[in-house]
Amino acid sequence: MKKFDVSDYRVSSQINMDETPTTVDLDASKDEIKDALKKTRKDLASFQDTMYAHGKYAALICLQGMDTAGKDSLIREVFEEFNSRGVVVHSFKTPSTNELKHDYLWRHYIALPQRGKFGVFNRTHYENVLVTRVHPEYILNENIPGINQVSDIDESFWKNRFKQINSFEKTLTENGTVIFKFFLNISKEEQKYRLLRRLNKKEKNWKFSPGDLKERKLWDDYMKCYEAVLNNTSTAYAPWYIIPSDSKTTARYLVSKILFETMTGFKDIKEPELEPEIQAKISEYKQQLERE
Amino acid sequence: MKKFDVSDYRVSSQINMDETPTTVDLDASKDEIKDALKKTRKDLASFQDTMYAHGKYAALICLQGMDTAGKDSLIREVFEEFNSRGVVVHSFKTPSTNELKHDYLWRHYIALPQRGKFGVFNRTHYENVLVTRVHPEYILNENIPGINQVSDIDESFWKNRFKQINSFEKTLTENGTVIFKFFLNISKEEQKYRLLRRLNKKEKNWKFSPGDLKERKLWDDYMKCYEAVLNNTSTAYAPWYIIPSDSKTTARYLVSKILFETMTGFKDIKEPELEPEIQAKISEYKQQLERE
Repeated sequence: MKKFDVSDYRVSSQINMDETPTTVDLDASKDEIKDALKKTRKDLASFQDTMYAHGKYAALICLQGMDTAGKDSLIREVFEEFNSRGVVVHSFKTPSTNELKHDYLWRHYIALPQRGKFGVFNRTHYENVLVTRVHPEYILNENIPGINQVSDIDESFWKNRFKQINSFEKTLTENGTVIFKFFLNISKEEQKYRLLRRLNKKEKNWKFSPGDLKERKLWDDYMKCYEAVLNNTSTAYAPWYIIPSDSKTTARYLVSKILFETMTGFKDIKEPELEPEIQAKISEYKQQLERE
Repeated sequence: MKKFDVSDYRVSSQINMDETPTTVDLDASKDEIKDALKKTRKDLASFQDTMYAHGKYAALICLQGMDTAGKDSLIREVFEEFNSRGVVVHSFKTPSTNELKHDYLWRHYIALPQRGKFGVFNRTHYENVLVTRVHPEYILNENIPGINQVSDIDESFWKNRFKQINSFEKTLTENGTVIFKFFLNISKEEQKYRLLRRLNKKEKNWKFSPGDLKERKLWDDYMKCYEAVLNNTSTAYAPWYIIPSDSKTTARYLVSKILFETMTGFKDIKEPELEPEIQAKISEYKQQLERE
């Protein structure tokens, strides 16, 4: 199996969307990759127990991708071995009336993971520079002063959002949240295949909506917006990773491996030691219990 | 009465705490100032109704000051005429265990006012660069990675918090929240007088705590920290105002006037108009009801 390197997937220079791979050859069979995923997710779950006890870091996992990119099943597979206490998943849908009464980051801020935990955003604050950029009329629902019609939304509006998002993420990382942003990259052909499967398999029908086909027609617009996102918001403190996702197994393995390799790089994460005065009295405490 | 000018109180250049006034001569009697406050708070309340109907702007009022500076009674007096629907007050005390599991801005973010409303922070996110700077051991409760003892907290730590707070406020203002930051400035003598009153009047006793005297001994440390706050976080988008507060009446009047003058400067705030097609049918709707 190909040697794994986190930096192969990290966005650290300007990218061109046409050239980003949706497949990768790991020089391994599907079963071998599945086994590697199983091992990594077990290691990750065990590491998270330590992280919980340590209680200083949080991990925020942001998942973006086109419809059918595999976000839901990836969450199921990567966090399979976790103690439920250790991971909280938030799936962000169309903003509610209450959410729209606040700035667009508010609903994400309140959903941030506590120290010691993993938080997963299934679709994220980046929808505010993706779906709303493809459909700028959605921005009008936010009731932002000075933005009264679509023509009020210019290039500087989006640039400014990138800045706002970057400062939001900077503050979080500086206070102990490690941020991962994964773009699950599938080809347009793969999406066609997966949508057809949803329509063909009765038990998958519920995941289909006619809106999916409308959005598919806007594929190129979405890719342009993703390109702007990746080029403006992949930072040293909160990098984007492009995950080739035409194979779900591969995508799940890569995500789990990036999480594990990065988090275990924080060498200060370990179970806290008992204070010396308590440590010194351990046999005393034992006796106290045994004498009961 | 002296002509009122918002900019007289706004911090727009570097200040020296020793030179900031705790009194101001408005060239008016106490009764005249009281009458002016009554008129302004009525106008402000009526303006807020319009702002609620408009539904695009929020106002965030941040109140800071030493013990006995008059924060609580100012809130009571300035918002006296408000429809309760229009104003939400949050008094921030020592952070809870749950709050400490997030970055220090989190509990403030979730308490932000909705569009159309006034939100008051009675003590604010600035306590994170004030009380914690005077007592840096409190920072250790936040469990920030890399900050394991007081000696890990250096000058750059505080500078960085100023930056984090500035970006937080910038994002809010860019999305429709108007931010006011008031430092209620009292003299050390006036505090002595007010603390004695708390001890002398039985019905005021509950507001006293022995801790108040301990903090009073740290007066000069607090002033140094306030000076750093005012000089690093008074921005064009979220300015600080220094309110001379040895007279409570004057302080209340000044705050209400700054709020009113600034908010009415947003000329786009007005009741929304009915859409033309609805407007055109008003007599039709009336007939429909009358025919019932």
